[in-house]
Amino acid sequence: MATKAASTKKPASAKAMAKAKPAASAPAAKAHPMSPLAPKTHPKLPPLAGVRLATGEAGVRYKGRTDVLLVTLSEGTQAAGVFTKSKTSSAPVDWCRKQLKGGSGRALIVNSGNANAFTGKIGDESVRDVADATAATLGCRSSEVFMASTGVIGEPLPHKKITTILGQLAEEGAADGWQAAAEAIMTTDTFPKLATAKASIDGRTVTINGIAKGSGMIAPDMATMLAFVFTDADLPASVLQQILAEGADKSFNAITVDSDTSTSDTLLLFATGKGAKHASITKSTDKKLVEFRKALDSVLLDLALQVVRDGEGATKLIQIDVTGARDNVAAKRIALSIANSPLVKTAIAGADANWGRVVMAVGKAGEEADRDKLKISFGNQVVAEKGLRAESYDEAKATKTVQGKEVLISVDVGIAKGSARVWTCDFTEGYIRINGSYRS
Amino acid sequence: MATKAASTKKPASAKAMAKAKPAASAPAAKAHPMSPLAPKTHPKLPPLAGVRLATGEAGVRYKGRTDVLLVTLSEGTQAAGVFTKSKTSSAPVDWCRKQLKGGSGRALIVNSGNANAFTGKIGDESVRDVADATAATLGCRSSEVFMASTGVIGEPLPHKKITTILGQLAEEGAADGWQAAAEAIMTTDTFPKLATAKASIDGRTVTINGIAKGSGMIAPDMATMLAFVFTDADLPASVLQQILAEGADKSFNAITVDSDTSTSDTLLLFATGKGAKHASITKSTDKKLVEFRKALDSVLLDLALQVVRDGEGATKLIQIDVTGARDNVAAKRIALSIANSPLVKTAIAGADANWGRVVMAVGKAGEEADRDKLKISFGNQVVAEKGLRAESYDEAKATKTVQGKEVLISVDVGIAKGSARVWTCDFTEGYIRINGSYRS
Repeated sequence: MATKAASTKKPASAKAMAKAKPAASAPAAKAHPMSPLAPKTHPKLPPLAGVRLATGEAGVRYKGRTDVLLVTLSEGTQAAGVFTKSKTSSAPVDWCRKQLKGGSGRALIVNSGNANAFTGKIGDESVRDVADATAATLGCRSSEVFMASTGVIGEPLPHKKITTILGQLAEEGAADGWQAAAEAIMTTDTFPKLATAKASIDGRTVTINGIAKGSGMIAPDMATMLAFVFTDADLPASVLQQILAEGADKSFNAITVDSDTSTSDTLLLFATGKGAKHASITKSTDKKLVEFRKALDSVLLDLALQVVRDGEGATKLIQIDVTGARDNVAAKRIALSIANSPLVKTAIAGADANWGRVVMAVGKAGEEADRDKLKISFGNQVVAEKGLRAESYDEAKATKTVQGKEVLISVDVGIAKGSARVWTCDFTEGYIRINGSYRS
Repeated sequence: MATKAASTKKPASAKAMAKAKPAASAPAAKAHPMSPLAPKTHPKLPPLAGVRLATGEAGVRYKGRTDVLLVTLSEGTQAAGVFTKSKTSSAPVDWCRKQLKGGSGRALIVNSGNANAFTGKIGDESVRDVADATAATLGCRSSEVFMASTGVIGEPLPHKKITTILGQLAEEGAADGWQAAAEAIMTTDTFPKLATAKASIDGRTVTINGIAKGSGMIAPDMATMLAFVFTDADLPASVLQQILAEGADKSFNAITVDSDTSTSDTLLLFATGKGAKHASITKSTDKKLVEFRKALDSVLLDLALQVVRDGEGATKLIQIDVTGARDNVAAKRIALSIANSPLVKTAIAGADANWGRVVMAVGKAGEEADRDKLKISFGNQVVAEKGLRAESYDEAKATKTVQGKEVLISVDVGIAKGSARVWTCDFTEGYIRINGSYRS
């Protein structure tokens, strides 16, 4: 688990932090070393009209670090979301799914340290209590309060620790608390994840800010644990939902760290409508939205790739491009079969251009494939084609393509036009070390 | 990779070994330490009428160890097989599938060190050449020669190294070369895998002997890399095929080490009909076969569990029992979702009774499940039921259930009557070490 110390300290974020509980008596959090794939710098996210952030130390599980984030949203904010497909989804996920039907969001409250998953009716009541308390504090409806929790499964959420500090958080909310917000939602993450973009709608500039957390139990669908994106654009919930779902398919639903799917995966998008006034938009296909969608997609992908870069134990980011499959669905299945193969991922970890394991992974995907039409490349080196090792194959050259921090594996199935792109990380002893002792 | 030194040396098997190539100049094979789950002793397999075994050092890839096994089978031997479902299956698998239609087997030739997979037409020709040479040596038809190869994918099989020593192998074949045979087919295995059973058909005792290899790239379907079972019973190919397929479902198709499916998985069953004469059997459902099928199933399961016990890096054998699922197929899918979850397997490796990860794995299986009806036990401790942690939950007691070498995880889905049992091993840093450097 990462601590604040692991990331750049900024006075702005420190100011936004509610110190609801003294850290003095708490044991030090056990830190994993920062991922070697971490971005060199974190972007500074600009204030967003209608969004205020505050973080606090509730001591849900961790001590000596922030573990609760309250985001207050201005009246009229519209909301959309994409969630885990797990059949044992967490209480907060069940709650958010239900509240999204209203389309209106006034608050987001997130805690780390406890997932409130598999906690039965008590878990549902915890969410309800937090939502009611937040609604009372902010003067909105409980159904406009969204919640997400990440951490250990199966332990009751000590929600009173959260509601106790709500008043203070609501008071201390600031427009520039993005970095602190990203830090408060971390669990085993080794760096906070932030992304921002600007876009023009109808000639007016709007802003998109996003934060995310996640480093293990990362697989479609959904691939992240938690990601929250905010914009000051003025868009109705129905439009937000459509563009979010499409964007998620190309980002959070195209990454995998360990093939495990969380009970708590949550991606929420809020639009405050408090930015520059632009023309009314009622359809996701509106041409005035083209630039905005591009910007949103870039924020989603940026955050998703940061999640992969923080994959537990990761030392290499792997991009897998599949073309020539029966259709896009088949292509994605083949790409994920490669991305989830422990044998492919351990080979890459060992800087071994073991393309035979890629052949194996294509074969086990269960999708149409023809040995003799398959073409596999590492970087720009064709390593296998026409049913066997490429004539031009050069072991030293192939090895070079997997020695860097970023590896590209391309597979042309050669039978039709389906394509997909997914990302994963390598599989190292670090993953085992982290996950063999997560609870201890 | 294991060497002969890793297993019990027996004069009998040494005698059956053809020393076609001197081991003197060869570099030492890199040995992995013996699995802590290895059986204390290997069963001594009795001679089987109609079966002769010989092993030799062809130097296909490994030096200083045997790497080729020739099994000669008496006239009239009937054959059956179950193979990988990989779409990029190896040349020997394609060959065996085709020849099985004839139902007759006179020879089995196996090499380790090279899988002859993704080797294009050259690979097919290699198999054909080996089959032709074997047929010429033994005086049978090429279509009666079965072949299996295990090792690196994508490199042309130097099949002349094998055909060169065929004559010597055919001469030196002996009835008691079982241990040497099991050793010759090993790759990263740390111990040879053997099993035997006797059964009565119609009052006459027949024998079943089996050998297997496999330690990684183990997942249904098929779960082993290679397993060969022989009996002196007199059974037609059609009956053999039926009882083998059913037996494989409960054994080799119910184990997983790493969720990866080999291009080369092969399970063959040969019946020489040269044992005690018994009544003619024409149907797999014949009641006279009940005891034989039980014995065959026990041999298959014994070999399959030895494969799991030799799972790369394994320190614990994990049995997963799922009951109360929608149907047996759903139960198996849930069981495999748990068995293939890196997070469950790393938790067990760390002796952490992290049942929350089991909840996660049930949830991601995609099968019908109801949080509030789920009941999860570790050993005989109920850890979760009625949608949350069991009232009687005791962390110390739960931890005890995962500290031994064998761990039982039971999941009652609680909605219908489907059930399944699968086995896997834990996931340790040893797996990463082995697979990050397999080719180097």
